[in-house]
Amino acid sequence: MSLLRALNPRAVAILGASDNPIKPGGRPIAYMLRHGFAGRILPVNPKRSEVQGLPAFPSLRELPAPPDAVVISLPSEDVAAAIDDCVAVGASMAVIYSSGFAELGDAGRAQQAELLARAQRGGLRLFGPNCQGVANFSTGAILNFSTMINENPPEDGPVAIVSQSGAGAAILYGGLRRAGIGMRYMVSTGNEADVCAAEAVRTVLGDEHIRLVVLYLETLRQSAQLAEAARLARARGVPILAVKAGRTSAGQATASSHTGALAAEDALADAFMRQHGIVRLTDFRELIDYAPLFLSQPTPRGRRVVSISNSGATCVLSADAAEDFGLAIGQFDAATLAGLTQALPSYVTARNPIDMTTALLGKPDTFGKTLAVLSGSGAADLVHVGFPIGGEGYDFADFAAQASRFARDSGIPIAVSVNQDWVAAAFQAQDVPTFWSERAAMRGLALLAERVGAGYGAGAAAAPCAAAASTTLDEPSSLAQLHEAGLPVMRHMVVASEAEVRAAFGTLPVPLVAKGVCADLAHKSEHGLVRLDIRSADQAVQAFHDFAATLRRLGARDGGMLLGAQHRADFELALGAHVDPEFGVVVMIGQGGVLVEALKDVQFLVAPFDRAQALEAIGRLAIAPAFAAVRGMPAVEPGAVADMMVRLGDWMLAQAGHVQSVDANPVLVARGAQQPPVIVDAVVAVARKETA
Amino acid sequence: MSLLRALNPRAVAILGASDNPIKPGGRPIAYMLRHGFAGRILPVNPKRSEVQGLPAFPSLRELPAPPDAVVISLPSEDVAAAIDDCVAVGASMAVIYSSGFAELGDAGRAQQAELLARAQRGGLRLFGPNCQGVANFSTGAILNFSTMINENPPEDGPVAIVSQSGAGAAILYGGLRRAGIGMRYMVSTGNEADVCAAEAVRTVLGDEHIRLVVLYLETLRQSAQLAEAARLARARGVPILAVKAGRTSAGQATASSHTGALAAEDALADAFMRQHGIVRLTDFRELIDYAPLFLSQPTPRGRRVVSISNSGATCVLSADAAEDFGLAIGQFDAATLAGLTQALPSYVTARNPIDMTTALLGKPDTFGKTLAVLSGSGAADLVHVGFPIGGEGYDFADFAAQASRFARDSGIPIAVSVNQDWVAAAFQAQDVPTFWSERAAMRGLALLAERVGAGYGAGAAAAPCAAAASTTLDEPSSLAQLHEAGLPVMRHMVVASEAEVRAAFGTLPVPLVAKGVCADLAHKSEHGLVRLDIRSADQAVQAFHDFAATLRRLGARDGGMLLGAQHRADFELALGAHVDPEFGVVVMIGQGGVLVEALKDVQFLVAPFDRAQALEAIGRLAIAPAFAAVRGMPAVEPGAVADMMVRLGDWMLAQAGHVQSVDANPVLVARGAQQPPVIVDAVVAVARKETA
Repeated sequence: MSLLRALNPRAVAILGASDNPIKPGGRPIAYMLRHGFAGRILPVNPKRSEVQGLPAFPSLRELPAPPDAVVISLPSEDVAAAIDDCVAVGASMAVIYSSGFAELGDAGRAQQAELLARAQRGGLRLFGPNCQGVANFSTGAILNFSTMINENPPEDGPVAIVSQSGAGAAILYGGLRRAGIGMRYMVSTGNEADVCAAEAVRTVLGDEHIRLVVLYLETLRQSAQLAEAARLARARGVPILAVKAGRTSAGQATASSHTGALAAEDALADAFMRQHGIVRLTDFRELIDYAPLFLSQPTPRGRRVVSISNSGATCVLSADAAEDFGLAIGQFDAATLAGLTQALPSYVTARNPIDMTTALLGKPDTFGKTLAVLSGSGAADLVHVGFPIGGEGYDFADFAAQASRFARDSGIPIAVSVNQDWVAAAFQAQDVPTFWSERAAMRGLALLAERVGAGYGAGAAAAPCAAAASTTLDEPSSLAQLHEAGLPVMRHMVVASEAEVRAAFGTLPVPLVAKGVCADLAHKSEHGLVRLDIRSADQAVQAFHDFAATLRRLGARDGGMLLGAQHRADFELALGAHVDPEFGVVVMIGQGGVLVEALKDVQFLVAPFDRAQALEAIGRLAIAPAFAAVRGMPAVEPGAVADMMVRLGDWMLAQAGHVQSVDANPVLVARGAQQPPVIVDAVVAVARKETA
Repeated sequence: MSLLRALNPRAVAILGASDNPIKPGGRPIAYMLRHGFAGRILPVNPKRSEVQGLPAFPSLRELPAPPDAVVISLPSEDVAAAIDDCVAVGASMAVIYSSGFAELGDAGRAQQAELLARAQRGGLRLFGPNCQGVANFSTGAILNFSTMINENPPEDGPVAIVSQSGAGAAILYGGLRRAGIGMRYMVSTGNEADVCAAEAVRTVLGDEHIRLVVLYLETLRQSAQLAEAARLARARGVPILAVKAGRTSAGQATASSHTGALAAEDALADAFMRQHGIVRLTDFRELIDYAPLFLSQPTPRGRRVVSISNSGATCVLSADAAEDFGLAIGQFDAATLAGLTQALPSYVTARNPIDMTTALLGKPDTFGKTLAVLSGSGAADLVHVGFPIGGEGYDFADFAAQASRFARDSGIPIAVSVNQDWVAAAFQAQDVPTFWSERAAMRGLALLAERVGAGYGAGAAAAPCAAAASTTLDEPSSLAQLHEAGLPVMRHMVVASEAEVRAAFGTLPVPLVAKGVCADLAHKSEHGLVRLDIRSADQAVQAFHDFAATLRRLGARDGGMLLGAQHRADFELALGAHVDPEFGVVVMIGQGGVLVEALKDVQFLVAPFDRAQALEAIGRLAIAPAFAAVRGMPAVEPGAVADMMVRLGDWMLAQAGHVQSVDANPVLVARGAQQPPVIVDAVVAVARKETA
């Protein structure tokens, strides 16, 4: 991994080196001097012979030794020549602070592309332009101008920060340092002419010292690299915590005006991160608050939490929070009950949450005994301890030592909520993560539990599948494609004459549905081109003639009439797929029919995915609870729908871009096992053939 | 308000007075001594002549002066006699620390009722039992044994704390004190034998010094008193911030095992609080974090927020958070744009959020000019300012002074998000509320905005309407009741013979629906007692005979057959009402049909309420977006449904408990204005007449 080596330079040149240690061209020099960079610092400034006490040189080509890394802190118009110089001296990495490129629009974008082209000629890797730089705090190679390094001195540690925003990197750096957490890398990628955040994550994961990556994204580029990084992280047991801003339409509009990048569909990025086990948080504060939990606590085995508190109110609020975050506050089995009853005084009920009332006052061993029972019982995948109020009689140093030992020995993560600084300090001294509310602690445990199970089986890398301009097929052709893909479509025939109508009528089960065929028209029902409940050949013939007249009137191509078996449905779903420029094949499932856009009850999966992931996606739909057995009616079996999703994704991948999108809506789904789901309408779009 | 006077005692006796200042019977004495209680402290302890340097007395009846308040810190078996003594000496208030009453079950509940009966004989008001006590920090009358008073010394201020949990009161006290906020009252109500939280809130609002009430509830009792308190609070412009624990089923189960109280439907409490302008928060942390915002900032005029930051990432995250919390990040009108373009340097775009980039570096007046434009333009109801990173060149003292002046002069609330302690301190020094993330700041602004508009018109007090045992009416009687209430029901007739069937057939529009009539059977369709699409008299007659046979087979009373006009529907809603033991008449609207229980997409309103509130409730349904015009189909007009809700609530109130519940499901609702909503099935239950 040569980029990782590049982050460990032996000689760093600074173009635009300043004698003033608070200017961008001065800060990295000051930082490297102060924080013990053992390599050579080579200031370049044609106007000075000395910079911050170091000899300065007039140009990159006149240095006494070739630098392997170069900081470019120059006006934008001088950057291209500087890149040529970097290539000439054989540098492996340039960090471009200068702004004035893609963020300004098309002209800047072209200039930025030119920088990359020049760099690539010489095998030079670029960070930026318009970036705050990179830093390796293990060697003191700080090619970064963030003021936060002044405010909170660095310390080497197990965390890597990767951010598309320089302010974001600095916020994370400052927050983690104030929490006493050390980090090795801080990488801000700016405009990403060359190295993007995804590659940066993959790179820092090559350092075995890294045990946690925190990532800030506004635009997910090169998702295949991030997928590869996530696989590496899973293999090494390293969590990746990510904030991707622009979750909402307001946020996306702001992000795209901020970076000039086109906002991709956030729901796709969300699906991608979930499938790859990247834990998504809402903001910097969460990344900072939950980092200690991921650093100190093991990965849980499941989602069952046991909560312990000395306050009844905290027990209630903990149960509320657990349910909010999808954790199970289960009751104890007989063996656990027996154990707890022995461990606890008579006035404490062995019920989850465990309300200790005053049982721990002056008796720290009751806490340890309770944890010991939980440790041996298999009753808890996660433990929350709430000490909202501590006072005389509580030996928190002892509780903390026991909590720490418990997590280490049992492999069960623990999170503590407190309100008093001195209580927090007692636990933090033992590396037990504390939070300022039971809700925050439960949220943290739920985030840990996201790393359990599914998502983790995900994905061999898919063959690339390019998005392209496409042509829409008519309904019979679309249905034929889906039939070929192995998906269930309604029995149907296409008829082109009155005789064919009458012949078809005898072969399909009544009642029938009749539709006019025309690739050019979306929403046929709005044009009166759909007729239901056809029970006689005469009705079918009438429809045939009416449709022909309508299509003539609309000036639309007449593709004949489709006669189909009318199916019974309890639910109308929509099943779709498309080739996304960033993520490749994406499959969608949702509430269908005419309300698909209005209700927005949809879930996405990036192909390939397995049946379990498809079932989980179905389970996340708002309509999912309605699939259960109600009022004596059987449940909907979601397995058949999940199979359709998997098959559609695999088929789209196999089509390698030939099929660009599928919109099957409605898919009729009935309760019970008798009538399997069936696609009754579909539009397939295939890549347009380029004519030479 | 005599209870308010009772919270301002001149002489306090302590039964079970302890010389040890860290025991419950010693703490209030120590606290009153330390914090300058100017009245008399009268320790009662038959075993000592002196307690903490004060003369002690053998019994309440042997005091040198009559106490107006008495602390009872005695074993549970001695409390009843103590109450008698309090009555004998003419005390007005007793605060019972002792536990061992209702929280232990039925026997304890009976003993508790006995305490109340004894107190009421003498006009004595009770706090507790099983409570941590009350405190008035303006006089030093601290009848409370919380250890937090030791840890964080009290200071008189504009806040009142009311909590059903002693730990909860202490958590709030400690958190607010650490934030530098003073409070006058801390009331923990414990088992609420007499004074409940609702009355305590109403009481403290009688003190004009109180500008904020923070409330912790597990069980909402005496909602009429809380409604009265909320009216008083609105009239005085005092926000009530409440946490009601037990929002979820897990939380409710825990709460009811914790307090022994039956958990009321949380959704009703939620509706009640919303209608009365009580701002509901999720936990203690939020109460503590948002209290300064409500204390320092004005009530906004609307929900449009303008966000300003020196970081693009913060702008994106702010927009995300605003949308999450239902605030509008609107764009600027031409006049505001012109003003901002003048105030801002050329490289800053006048777009909301305003990304200042480096515009404020060394130029604090740019900040003030920007605020001035917003102040005059009417473009902002709320302002968020994000300074995620501050360093040299930023004059935060100046920014803070300008922000504070802006909020005061413009009446527009402002909230600031920061990451650095020293930046926070600059704003806090000017009483500008700060938060540790843009998300938390936006959440705060959204909470302020909950006090805008609706909810605030709410409710004259309703006549009491008692819940009672009830009898179910059959469908025709139920429909007749609802028709009488002024609600639209389907055209229908009840027929009892073949001749009547044939006669009816000619008078109703086909197709018809036929249903067997029987008050004893719920879910008639499951028994084959519903037949749709009846288009001939013969079909109707056939149904009539079939239903009679079915009812015979089921051994159910045969009430004849109902024939109704079959209506077209785009949506099936459920409209319901019931008399709740706590809240009186409650009206429900939701997705109906057979999925009403599965989807749980329902909203509640406590009657009486107005059309605007009904429309808001409809708008909160998950299905609401589907009511919009889609695919060329017109929108659903929700006004008619809102009218039905208002009418149903008013009618139920007018029935004064005679009608106990209404379950109209489905209510068929069609798009467009042509077919108004119509109730096609209903069950009404009326109070059972007691036979003497």
